[in-house]
Amino acid sequence: MPRIVVEVMPKPEILDPQGKAVNGALPRLGFHGISQVRQGKRFELTVPGEVTEEMLAQVREAATTLLSNPVIEDVVRVEVEES
Amino acid sequence: MPRIVVEVMPKPEILDPQGKAVNGALPRLGFHGISQVRQGKRFELTVPGEVTEEMLAQVREAATTLLSNPVIEDVVRVEVEES
Repeated sequence: MPRIVVEVMPKPEILDPQGKAVNGALPRLGFHGISQVRQGKRFELTVPGEVTEEMLAQVREAATTLLSNPVIEDVVRVEVEES
Repeated sequence: MPRIVVEVMPKPEILDPQGKAVNGALPRLGFHGISQVRQGKRFELTVPGEVTEEMLAQVREAATTLLSNPVIEDVVRVEVEES
């Protein structure tokens, strides 16, 4: 069944405490050479049947209303993946 | 600066209450035709300079130790993105 992948990241100017925590933990665990970490969300929406243009338009709208908060987050990817 | 994107999803057999909540909200908001929603994480790791094979190997290791919990999550994507 095809899946629509939607990805959401905090806007660059928004503080991201989770990403900061990961960034702080990396060198303590022996991982070096990363200067910044940002943490966002990945949604996988399963579609039973075909992904029509109408369905994609619907998902794009849901991405900016339900799946993200446009005040603090950007939708960085909406893509169909066959599985 | 190049970024390494790491994506993590809950394993299929693991309950995903956040995804379930989104799935329940979709029809209430007028979005139809989605049968399942799963929610995972997307990390963006900024690398100052070049992404070497060694760096990628390091990030792959961090992905399965720090960025995900291998008992309940799968790393579904590790990819370099130029920005």
